[in-house]
Amino acid sequence: MKETPDFEFLPLQNSNVPLYMQVYNYYKALITKGKLPPATKLPSIRRCAEALSVSRTTAEAAYLQLCADGYVLSRPQSGYYVTDLYVPRPQKPAAAPAKKPEIRFDFASLSADRESFDFNLWRRYLKSALRQDERLLSYGEVQGEADLREAVAQYITEKRNVVCTPDKIVIGAGVQSLLHILCAVIGTPCPVAFLGSSFAQGVAIFRDHGFPVCSSPEDAKIIYTAPSHVNRWGDVMPTSERIDLLRNTAEKDVLLIEDDYDNEFNYFSRPAPALQGLDGGRRVIYLGTFSKLLLPSIRLSYMILPDALLPAYRKIAPLYNQTASKVEQIALCQFIRDGHLASQIRKVKKLYTQKALCLEAAVRQVFGEDTHVYTGETGFVVRFEPATPLRAAELARRAAEAGVAVKAHNLSNGKTSLLLSCSGVRAADYPAALSVLKKICESSDKPANLKN
Amino acid sequence: MKETPDFEFLPLQNSNVPLYMQVYNYYKALITKGKLPPATKLPSIRRCAEALSVSRTTAEAAYLQLCADGYVLSRPQSGYYVTDLYVPRPQKPAAAPAKKPEIRFDFASLSADRESFDFNLWRRYLKSALRQDERLLSYGEVQGEADLREAVAQYITEKRNVVCTPDKIVIGAGVQSLLHILCAVIGTPCPVAFLGSSFAQGVAIFRDHGFPVCSSPEDAKIIYTAPSHVNRWGDVMPTSERIDLLRNTAEKDVLLIEDDYDNEFNYFSRPAPALQGLDGGRRVIYLGTFSKLLLPSIRLSYMILPDALLPAYRKIAPLYNQTASKVEQIALCQFIRDGHLASQIRKVKKLYTQKALCLEAAVRQVFGEDTHVYTGETGFVVRFEPATPLRAAELARRAAEAGVAVKAHNLSNGKTSLLLSCSGVRAADYPAALSVLKKICESSDKPANLKN
Repeated sequence: MKETPDFEFLPLQNSNVPLYMQVYNYYKALITKGKLPPATKLPSIRRCAEALSVSRTTAEAAYLQLCADGYVLSRPQSGYYVTDLYVPRPQKPAAAPAKKPEIRFDFASLSADRESFDFNLWRRYLKSALRQDERLLSYGEVQGEADLREAVAQYITEKRNVVCTPDKIVIGAGVQSLLHILCAVIGTPCPVAFLGSSFAQGVAIFRDHGFPVCSSPEDAKIIYTAPSHVNRWGDVMPTSERIDLLRNTAEKDVLLIEDDYDNEFNYFSRPAPALQGLDGGRRVIYLGTFSKLLLPSIRLSYMILPDALLPAYRKIAPLYNQTASKVEQIALCQFIRDGHLASQIRKVKKLYTQKALCLEAAVRQVFGEDTHVYTGETGFVVRFEPATPLRAAELARRAAEAGVAVKAHNLSNGKTSLLLSCSGVRAADYPAALSVLKKICESSDKPANLKN
Repeated sequence: MKETPDFEFLPLQNSNVPLYMQVYNYYKALITKGKLPPATKLPSIRRCAEALSVSRTTAEAAYLQLCADGYVLSRPQSGYYVTDLYVPRPQKPAAAPAKKPEIRFDFASLSADRESFDFNLWRRYLKSALRQDERLLSYGEVQGEADLREAVAQYITEKRNVVCTPDKIVIGAGVQSLLHILCAVIGTPCPVAFLGSSFAQGVAIFRDHGFPVCSSPEDAKIIYTAPSHVNRWGDVMPTSERIDLLRNTAEKDVLLIEDDYDNEFNYFSRPAPALQGLDGGRRVIYLGTFSKLLLPSIRLSYMILPDALLPAYRKIAPLYNQTASKVEQIALCQFIRDGHLASQIRKVKKLYTQKALCLEAAVRQVFGEDTHVYTGETGFVVRFEPATPLRAAELARRAAEAGVAVKAHNLSNGKTSLLLSCSGVRAADYPAALSVLKKICESSDKPANLKN
């Protein structure tokens, strides 16, 4: 530990920067450029002051600032030393992610339809929420804003016949935030089974909390189901099956989690009653979301807890901060109260019914009039089996390369099934997008890496 | 299972409701009122049609609707039966929560100061974000919007000397959402210790993920620390201690989580360098938030992951949906780019410095000029020990009853310490609020339940 012998002071430049900061910057540059390596002892304050023609107070202020910023360390009765922690670090540029092909037509997305949403109306509600200065100055209620919970309770009770009061509702930014809380409410991990299509984001949360995820509902103490969307093409669980599920699980004292997303989108039938309502709200945890209905970018979901879980929830509630945006909560509350949610559902249903019919017609036009096209009850998604030698993964890959995103599946009969969501592509673009798909389906089955 | 023998049809009322819905409502009323108990067989469609003078198609439509809504169940070759699940349920009114006394002066809150935030400016940015229709139609990036991550990376690198590129940043709605992800990234649970003041919301998340929380840092593989706010009154961990912490934990290969909240609020000193920067970003996970700086109701936090954890994060990232509002992300990004975050910090610092001085002066004025008032380095909070026979809990309770929220603590020397946050009360109200406190402090120590 020695003072660098060849340490030479250069005169400070005239500038508007306070003198002590000039001294500070002088040293900082030397340190970060490696001219003063770690463990080097700095010149004494007295020597520094003399050499740079500044007062000792100025020099000391600079040294203290260097300490505060971690460049040097003060050793009492010894002096100031360059730290070994503040060495210059080459900043690695971020690894550029693999370039994705640009998607022009997105049949795979869950994006909402531009026409489906009245932006100006929503903007008006958000603006009005933004005017509530006083409310926005404080943290929100952990359970969600009381007025929003009231509006949701009233709305969902009327619409879905669920059993619900505002005190049973928990608001969160997305279903995952709510599942985190639910796992904490349940406390002791127990086996969970998912009915129907898998839900990787749900599985992740239960695994995180140490809940084993089992494949058979027979072994489960918690069953997760989305009865308004039981398979990929959006079929609805019939009422009789719902009642059976409640009966079978009642005997074994199983908790049911009803993820009722897409319940609004039963185009071709009146929606089947919610499990939660059929059960009288005793053993069913109901999950709903507004992202699908309004805008995917609005992260607002809710959970209705059964009475039995309320005491446990109240105990842990203060430990879990609210995740949903307060402004959006305030806006949504008034939006519901003014009846816009109900009319938004009617509008979206009408639009998607029309678009699904259009898409069906376009598929028949492009792929042949005898193509069997099936539209799921939820109405978003159209399914058919094109004539193609390609298997699902290769077909989806080539389509993406050509700018069309699709979901494809291999069927047990050796055929390939295409699932197209009608929402994310404009109806006017259906024929063009489908023609691209048709060409890909007809292409001979060259291995991908020989292409080009 | 028999048809009710005394089942008598009453004629339908004339109305605008479709005929089949009139029949439906007719039965629904009988079922929900308990006049048709569970398992009762409904009259045949033919008999119903004759009795109510409607067509058989109308009667059948009504029965199908009753099925769809879960009131009755169709047994093939037998008939329609009232379900036992749809019994009338008395709707319990929500238990009214205990009425809280109204707080006029809130010295306990972390609410922001009304004067501290330029609502009109923020509204302008939100409005501009709301105009980006195309972006709002889709779900956001799971890691957070790319442009916001870029703006945050640049801002925080400059301001806190952390080592950071946008690909290392994860955005979330609050620190808890980020800790959930972090636990999943770390994977295998290992012991966690919290340095300094406890952080119940942090403890909860680690417990949820099965990470044992230990009291001694010696036993921990993860250490959680808030070096910019190491105790209740907001003192800052000095640079030398930071360097020691890094050295000591380096040997034992411990992960450090640096919750850098309040780093902006070091009024009386330049902020000490972030652990993450001192460490070169190797073993430190950095957590930051904008809620404190802008508005508590804005739920926007971020986490900077070290290189070593990035591969694990990329693997699990698709499983965790983004929780933060996309609109607010877009708005904040432009807000930072235009330099408003930096000027907001300057403004808030200035305001709180003034308010803390005002509060100090007001305490001396009301409680006596010789009162020793201590202001924490973070500058929000003023601490003093009033002359009072009351212990902390009773003092805080009585103050709340009188409309003043405070935090109080029992000291080991038998005295009671009051912590007052300067932010949530207007400076003009300090003398009035403190006078209320003074009176309570001087009141004789009658047990609370004898009061009134």
